[in-house]
This record gives sequence, C-alpha cells and structure tokens, in this order.
Amino acid sequence: MSSDTAPTNYAVQTHEVSPPIEEYFFEGAEKLLELWFCSSTGSSGSLRNIPRNEIDAMLDIARCKILHSKHNESIDSYVLSESSLFISDHRVILKTCGSTRLLAALPVIMQLAGTYAQLDQVQSVYYSRKNFLRPDLQPPLHKNFDAEVEYLDSFFEDGHAYCMGSLKQDRWYLYTFHREVEFPVHKQPDHTLEILMSDLDDNVLHKFTKDFAVDGKDCFMRAGIDKIIPAGADVHDELFDPCGYSMNAYMNDSDQYATIHVTPEKEFSFASFETNQDLVCLYSQTRKVLQCFKPGKILLTVFANDVSVKGKDAQQQLWDRELIGYRRTNVQFVRLETETLVYAHFVRKSTQDTSSSDEDDGERSD
Amino acid sequence: MSSDTAPTNYAVQTHEVSPPIEEYFFEGAEKLLELWFCSSTGSSGSLRNIPRNEIDAMLDIARCKILHSKHNESIDSYVLSESSLFISDHRVILKTCGSTRLLAALPVIMQLAGTYAQLDQVQSVYYSRKNFLRPDLQPPLHKNFDAEVEYLDSFFEDGHAYCMGSLKQDRWYLYTFHREVEFPVHKQPDHTLEILMSDLDDNVLHKFTKDFAVDGKDCFMRAGIDKIIPAGADVHDELFDPCGYSMNAYMNDSDQYATIHVTPEKEFSFASFETNQDLVCLYSQTRKVLQCFKPGKILLTVFANDVSVKGKDAQQQLWDRELIGYRRTNVQFVRLETETLVYAHFVRKSTQDTSSSDEDDGERSD
Repeated sequence: MSSDTAPTNYAVQTHEVSPPIEEYFFEGAEKLLELWFCSSTGSSGSLRNIPRNEIDAMLDIARCKILHSKHNESIDSYVLSESSLFISDHRVILKTCGSTRLLAALPVIMQLAGTYAQLDQVQSVYYSRKNFLRPDLQPPLHKNFDAEVEYLDSFFEDGHAYCMGSLKQDRWYLYTFHREVEFPVHKQPDHTLEILMSDLDDNVLHKFTKDFAVDGKDCFMRAGIDKIIPAGADVHDELFDPCGYSMNAYMNDSDQYATIHVTPEKEFSFASFETNQDLVCLYSQTRKVLQCFKPGKILLTVFANDVSVKGKDAQQQLWDRELIGYRRTNVQFVRLETETLVYAHFVRKSTQDTSSSDEDDGERSD
Repeated sequence: MSSDTAPTNYAVQTHEVSPPIEEYFFEGAEKLLELWFCSSTGSSGSLRNIPRNEIDAMLDIARCKILHSKHNESIDSYVLSESSLFISDHRVILKTCGSTRLLAALPVIMQLAGTYAQLDQVQSVYYSRKNFLRPDLQPPLHKNFDAEVEYLDSFFEDGHAYCMGSLKQDRWYLYTFHREVEFPVHKQPDHTLEILMSDLDDNVLHKFTKDFAVDGKDCFMRAGIDKIIPAGADVHDELFDPCGYSMNAYMNDSDQYATIHVTPEKEFSFASFETNQDLVCLYSQTRKVLQCFKPGKILLTVFANDVSVKGKDAQQQLWDRELIGYRRTNVQFVRLETETLVYAHFVRKSTQDTSSSDEDDGERSD
C-alpha cells in the first residue's frame, strides 16, 4: 500500500560528490500488534469508550492517521493512512506498514485503556511481522527483532520471542505475552488467519492502481475482493493515488473482521489478508485469497485457542495438506501458552505445474 | 565435560593496569554435525575405510583428539578429548564441545569421503547446537549462528537454517541440507533423540568427578548410566580429571549408538544424551535420562524420517504429553524436507510439585 505521504526515514546522503539517487521503495509488510485487556478489579469498561481525539493522538505517535471509520455494535473499524485499526470492547488490533513506529504507541494505548475503560491490565500481547525487505529504512525501534523484543520486554515480563521459518528466506517474528489474571476476559473460540503474500502476479498488480479503478469501491468489485470477503460483511476501503489498496470489513453483530492491504509496485509487491471470521472454513478462505492475488510466495499463520474447533481444523489441514499450485517449503506447529499456532511457507510451482489448479479461478485478467 | 587441555580461546587481556582474572569456564553444549554421503556413480565404498592417521589430522583441525575407539561390524566409535565421533558406512557424526572448531573440519571430511570411500556427494547435512552460554569464547567461525550458516552455505546450496524455541531463553539452531541424488543411500527407518540438559541437580554433579569415581567404568555403574543404556550395548567411556564424563555406546550388529557427555561444574553444568537406538521406546528412554541427571532445564529434539514408526510415535507423545515433574515452556513440530522434527523445552517444577514423580527413580544419592 502506498500513501501520499512520502516515507520519512530514508538515510540522509552525506557523500560529497554526487549522491546516488535512492529509488522509491515502500515496505508493504506490516507490523501487527494485538492486545487483550482486562481489569484488575473486575470492572467492565470498554476500549470503545476511548475518545476519537485520543486515538488520533496515539496514531500520531505511530506516524499514521485515520482516513475513515465504520462501526457496528461490537467493533470500531478504522482504515489508516498506513493499514488498519480495530477496537472492540477488550481488544485492540493495530496494523501499520511502511516506516511507521507502531510500538511507540504501545504505552499510550495501555494508558488510554486504563483511563477510559478501567482496563488496567494487559492480559495478552501478540506482536508479529514478516522480515522487512529494507530493515535499514525502519525507525530505530523497528530496525531488528532484537530491538523490538527488548522494547516489549520493558513493558512485559516473561514474554516469549520466536522466529518461524528458515532464517535464510522469508521468516516471521512473533512476540507473545500472557498474564494470569484474576478477572480474565471470558474465553470464547478465537482464531486468526493471516496470509502474507509477495511477488504478486503481474496481471493482478495493475488492478490496485488508479489507472484501473476509480476508487476503493470500484477496486473491491473489479479486483475480485468481493469474492474473498464473506457475504453480508460491512466494508470500507481506500484506493490510494497512484496505487495501493486498503480494506476493512466486519461481519454484522460480531467483532469478526477481515482486512486487506496491497502494495502493488512490481519491485516490492506485497499483499496481506487477515481475519478472525468463522463463517467460512479457513482453508477455503485461504484458497480464495490466493486465487485473487496469485502470489509467488506465501507466508501463512493460523492461531487457534483451545476452544476454537474451526481454528484447529484449519491448522490440521495446513499441516496435512499442500496448497494446490504451491510447494510447501516449511511448516511448523507450535504450542504456545494459551493456543496453538501453525506457520507455513509456500512458493509457487512453475506455470506448467499449476495450469490445472487454476480452473476454479473465477476472475482472470490475462 | 572438562579435558585436561586448557581451553585456548580466551580473549587475550590487553588492559595495561591489572587485568581482571577470567574465571574458569567450559562450554558443555556441543556443536553437532551429521553427514550422510553417497556416490555420484553408484559405487559402494565405506567411510570406515578412511585411515586413522587421516581421521587424526581431520580432528586436529577441529581442535580435538581421539582418546580411545571401539568397533563392531557396522560402526567405528571414538571418544574424543572433546566429545565423540561415530563413523559408519555412509554416515559421520561429529560432536564437539568447548571452544572446538568443528566446522573447520567439514571440507576435510568431504575430501576424505571422496578419496577413501568414493563417496563424492553429500546427500544430507544436519548441523545443530544449543545457544552457547559464552559465545564470546568461541572461535570466529562459531561466534554466532549467522556466521555458521554463511560458512555452511559456501559448501551447500539451498540449505535451510532454523532457530527453535524462544529467542529469549534456551534455543536450538539447526542447519539442514538435502540433495536429490541419483544413487541415494537406501532409506531405512531412522530417528535421532537428543536431550540437552542444564542446571543439573547438585547431588548428581559430584558423581562425575574423580572424587567420587575411579574411572569411566566406575562412573558408568555408580552414576547410574548403566540404567540409561539399553542392555547388551558395548560401551567405552572416560572420566576426566578432575571432573567431566564422556561415554559412547553401540548396540551389537547395528549402527545404533548412544553418547553422553557431562560437564559437572555447578556454575555451568550441562549434560547431553543422544541416540538413534530403536530397542527402547524413546519416551521411556527420555524418562530414564532425566531420572539420572535431574536437570533444571531440558531442550529435547526428535528427528524421524518418513519410515520411522518409532520416531513418529515418540514425536506424537512429546507433542501430546507432559514430562512428569517438568513444565513444558515450548513445543514445535516441524516438517522438514525428508523428515519431521519435534523440538521441546522444559523447566523443572518446584520440589514440592515433583516429589511424587520421582518414586520410580532407582538411584538417589541425597
């Protein structure tokens, strides 16, 4: 996704003669923070009580801003200049791409939760991201995972830090923390599917430009996003100028969401899909996403807590089965403190190998 | 394990006033290299044809030497000044602790395999180790895993590199490589169990000293190693002066081995157990090892290839079950190219919690 704000973290050229011209680059891979809050006294406030001006100020610190928002009875959905924010009663999901400083906003989020929702305890933390293509363009706090872990450790004791996947290729970093609390959030089935895609098909990339579509709504239909999102979802999205796409969706009467972000520049193409929905089987959901974006490389994660049957089903399928048209280069099944996690990495097979697998692909532009 | 040769890799003190006295330290955690060889022409030589003087020269490069050796029809077993070496027809297992330079011997091993066994292709590589307690005392080649991976990549293309476990606590690094070959080694059931133990019980440590036992054989019986090793195994071992213990065992008429190395200094106590035996269920095997060493922390790995039923059983048990007396802090199930791997990390529960679990512990010295 490209915003109209130029990245501000390019290294300053100090060479005395002719400085090399830095080519335009945008880091599509997001930093993703999910926080679950509870109260040390058993009081039951809601994070949705945090006023808009406080949210704006918090996002200023992370270096992004709200473009538009939409709400139902359970969730507040914000499309940002760099990715997305979802706030429900006890959970905040903040996802920011580019050279944003997501973690710098963490202490403010915690302070706001205590002040406006009486939620003074962080029950669970998940911070994750793919390896950056250009870590040198990130702010100091996000330059490497060690630095991020050290920062998170300054707020949470006994957090765990993992690196999934081969250290030599695409990989995925995760920091988790869980606190045993007196008044925990009621445990409901919960799972999260995230699909991080690189090297998107050339014929897909141009669909996420102003040359192809007029606006987000036009892009949503014509790029085939409508086929990915469960029917009946409320959607708000943004097509950036000259290119890039962001979409938030939520399902009525629940805090189930889906979010998509596309960086369509060929040199560093990237798309992400994330959802906690349980209307559609996550394995089918994954197939639909891949049919839309036709990525060359896929990094896929599924979290499932102990009571999520659908999440566990999806994990088992990912462990047992291949994705048609892709070669699985790595799969890891991890038991964390309160849930399990499956991580898998895939690369596209050659065109000849995949020709038969795309037969059920509804929309093709080539 | 301590040898009577002082470690040679302490940083040279250059401070002009009074250099601080470097306290004695020995890195018990081993570097472990397992190589499987085959021939590009289908010829069938054996690595066991490599002459002893060539093996000695190879080990000189790694900075260790043979203390004694023993042989059956399938395997040559060497106890080294720093850990162990096993050579069978197509497989070399070299395990070295301290500040040895194991990987420096890699090109020599490959050259010897070609020269003396006509085994000119490396079919599989497994290089692994726990995080070092004192990486600063390691030679440059082994200072960090990135350096090791870069070195291994100079010999093998498309190798994979992983870090298992939380990056913040004990963790385990693995480099693997597999080549598709024309004349592969015949695929037989194969699995490897490795148990890396830290913070051994005080009452266990003194059993691996010259104060307690006269020699290796005495230590083998009185420290309870005899209860760990499958009955009927051939054993040769070494009790170091003043402390430290190494043992190699192999089962008759097969290339099944077991090896144990103990560093009993309280400040940096460590013990390792490794086996590919399939006489005893690996879960029972693990229980016996833990009853002997009573470690505070355990890092455990089980490799199983596609045709190893016993290896897969052990993996499933490790995934499903806890180890009595221990809290599992992490478990990961990984599908590699030609096998699966389970990694697990455990910490001892408090004494009160474990009192009932030690009832079947045959030998106690406290």
